[in-house]
Amino acid sequence: MTLDEVVALCKRRGFVFQSAEIYGGFRSTYDYGPIGVLLLRAVKDQWWRSMVQLRHDVVGLDASILSPPAIWEASGHLDNFTDPLVDCRDCGARHRQDRLDNPEVCPACGARGELTEARQFNLMFKTHVGPVEEGAAAVYLRPETAQGIFVNFQNVVNSSRLKPPFGIGQIGKAFRNEITTGNFIFRTREFEMMEIEYFVKPGEDEESHQKWISDCLAWYTDLGVDPNRLRVRNHTGEELSHYAKATADIEYQFPWGWGEIQGTANRTNFDLSAHSGSSGQSLSYFDEQSGEHKVPYVIEPAAGVDRGFLAVLNEAYKVEKLEDGKDRTVLSLKPHLSPIKAAVIPLKKNNEELVLAAKNLKDELQSLSLGRVLLENSGNIGKSYRRHDEVGTPLCITVDFQTLEDQTVTIRNRDSMDQERVHLEEASPYLQEYLR
Amino acid sequence: MTLDEVVALCKRRGFVFQSAEIYGGFRSTYDYGPIGVLLLRAVKDQWWRSMVQLRHDVVGLDASILSPPAIWEASGHLDNFTDPLVDCRDCGARHRQDRLDNPEVCPACGARGELTEARQFNLMFKTHVGPVEEGAAAVYLRPETAQGIFVNFQNVVNSSRLKPPFGIGQIGKAFRNEITTGNFIFRTREFEMMEIEYFVKPGEDEESHQKWISDCLAWYTDLGVDPNRLRVRNHTGEELSHYAKATADIEYQFPWGWGEIQGTANRTNFDLSAHSGSSGQSLSYFDEQSGEHKVPYVIEPAAGVDRGFLAVLNEAYKVEKLEDGKDRTVLSLKPHLSPIKAAVIPLKKNNEELVLAAKNLKDELQSLSLGRVLLENSGNIGKSYRRHDEVGTPLCITVDFQTLEDQTVTIRNRDSMDQERVHLEEASPYLQEYLR
Repeated sequence: MTLDEVVALCKRRGFVFQSAEIYGGFRSTYDYGPIGVLLLRAVKDQWWRSMVQLRHDVVGLDASILSPPAIWEASGHLDNFTDPLVDCRDCGARHRQDRLDNPEVCPACGARGELTEARQFNLMFKTHVGPVEEGAAAVYLRPETAQGIFVNFQNVVNSSRLKPPFGIGQIGKAFRNEITTGNFIFRTREFEMMEIEYFVKPGEDEESHQKWISDCLAWYTDLGVDPNRLRVRNHTGEELSHYAKATADIEYQFPWGWGEIQGTANRTNFDLSAHSGSSGQSLSYFDEQSGEHKVPYVIEPAAGVDRGFLAVLNEAYKVEKLEDGKDRTVLSLKPHLSPIKAAVIPLKKNNEELVLAAKNLKDELQSLSLGRVLLENSGNIGKSYRRHDEVGTPLCITVDFQTLEDQTVTIRNRDSMDQERVHLEEASPYLQEYLR
Repeated sequence: MTLDEVVALCKRRGFVFQSAEIYGGFRSTYDYGPIGVLLLRAVKDQWWRSMVQLRHDVVGLDASILSPPAIWEASGHLDNFTDPLVDCRDCGARHRQDRLDNPEVCPACGARGELTEARQFNLMFKTHVGPVEEGAAAVYLRPETAQGIFVNFQNVVNSSRLKPPFGIGQIGKAFRNEITTGNFIFRTREFEMMEIEYFVKPGEDEESHQKWISDCLAWYTDLGVDPNRLRVRNHTGEELSHYAKATADIEYQFPWGWGEIQGTANRTNFDLSAHSGSSGQSLSYFDEQSGEHKVPYVIEPAAGVDRGFLAVLNEAYKVEKLEDGKDRTVLSLKPHLSPIKAAVIPLKKNNEELVLAAKNLKDELQSLSLGRVLLENSGNIGKSYRRHDEVGTPLCITVDFQTLEDQTVTIRNRDSMDQERVHLEEASPYLQEYLR
């Protein structure tokens, strides 16, 4: 399976479109289409449910994207969130110095010794609030969601009466002016994060770090990702961010190689201490054992929504050889992630009785609140099956002439392609049972 | 009830905090706290469910925030999305000319005849993609979510095989560099929209427009908003946006007066025609009756998430006088919107048996997937009730010593304050029935 095949499926079936495609496409920015947005929501809902909703020790937050320089001065991002950039004097190409195989040679034109000295390029997007650019206040699009949690630490503690260990979870967009983007939705300038800042007592950070790494690995396998295509990679000292004591990436084996889908950093008390110092506000908890106020340490499991989406899609994508020699493309998504839970298909599209019976069944199944159910009225059963195989619909239910006689329908299983005849009254419990 | 009371509740109980508050607060930007994010999600989920999920004629989309100038040139926003701005030569204050009571007088210092000529100020936030600001490409933060739908029109039609009438729904953030902000989360520079572009055949637009206005009114009353505090106001010719043939606002009576919570515009075929003209791509459907390709008209019901949130909060907020003369603040949210569905409270916080029984019950109720259930272990029943009245928790369940003897618990109703004694085994069905 290649990345190109997934990209083609994404466009064909409405998972992902390139942004502003009618204008030639906009620089590695993507839009989620009708099917994609349902899978995207399923991934995020699943995360929220297991990481926030069901955990007694985690609460949620949703902070703003626009944020003032004071935050990024204190966090160190204004000084340190940079990439080293070199230009080729010969061809004008621009490269990240730390990614050059040979620092003497321009990888674009091959010129030797023509690369400039590296200069530090800040990755934050800047804009201006107020009427005139020159006089207006500079603000930044957040390059990570974490700082919105740190600056709200005391407000959350006061209103929710929490003590370490506890976490604050957030799903939201972040923006980085990356020099090099690529691999479809893997590295983009606009992306979404699902992130927890988990506050622990100093000294309990390393144990918590390991616990989160294994919990998050389990979360990905629950999504249907094969553990053999997951690995944990610890950052080397050189790679570590300015705030981190240790970071472990969960990597997934994409078609082009291993890529990070989640980072779990031990950020120590760096951020809270920095904000406390800069703002003059206490950001601490009262430790009853020692009778002192202490700044907690923080473990940060931070997952990329788009990357998780791509891993799930890649895992599910299969091309099978059928008995008749033809290929079948099927997306074997776990049913709880499937964008469409069931398609109801009348055998003939112009037969009023069949269409009405199908519509009634669809309304009944939709009302179960299990997710989207579709009436598929193309009049071509084979094409309908192919379409729903490709978007991962686990069950296709066909209403035919026998239905009108004996109230039975055919239920076809996406994965096995087996067909079962069941009574109309059994369709709802069947779907409920299947999706449980 | 005043806005200040709602703002105070929001901070005290973790609904909404001012962004970067520890740095003195950041210009009318807000963060949703642990309780607020749950209400925010409930409002958005409710919208998605009724406007997208359950409708056979609407599909979803999630487009990018960063967008290239080509889109905003074609849409007319680069030329027309402006406010007229005047400065006072005397005191330097800046005002929107169209909001001055007296166009001769500076409302800040009272100077007469000192206001400059109006200049047109574009409300879009601009930033730059690429390493060097001068050489980099200018991009805009979308000021509305609609354009992401229009430019994807053909991709959606092709992948989902839709014909008018059909709609594309989207929830997402948009950004406007407003000169004047205010009224808490009502008018901010960063805000979230829930929006449908509903495509109809030309000639069917006016009927569809009226249908959407009444459907959306019903949606707000379903959320618990009193119809007496809702009204529909049609835009005058002067108010109409450059793309609209007619627009009707749904307004809510906030503490400071009537304010728009949703706009429903008849955008005609303005946007699709403009994008088709600029891009050279056909954005149309095949009309079988006439045998022609036609550009559909579009009706746009566009709701502000933050404004809906504020209206719901305002509706639910009540201060009641109790028999003992004390005040009770209670948030009478509809149960399906309540951030916390039930709180389980052990009578004594240091009694292991009580806490264990309460924890077991909490786990059982949580596992029903009805929403968040909390173990409230403060040891003070009165305080717990007050807290949960203020965040709108519909049911508080107390575990006391009698529970250990006869397996019964007390269920207290938020609105009536009545208490019932029920068997532990009845707690789950009780909660399920109550939230149905």
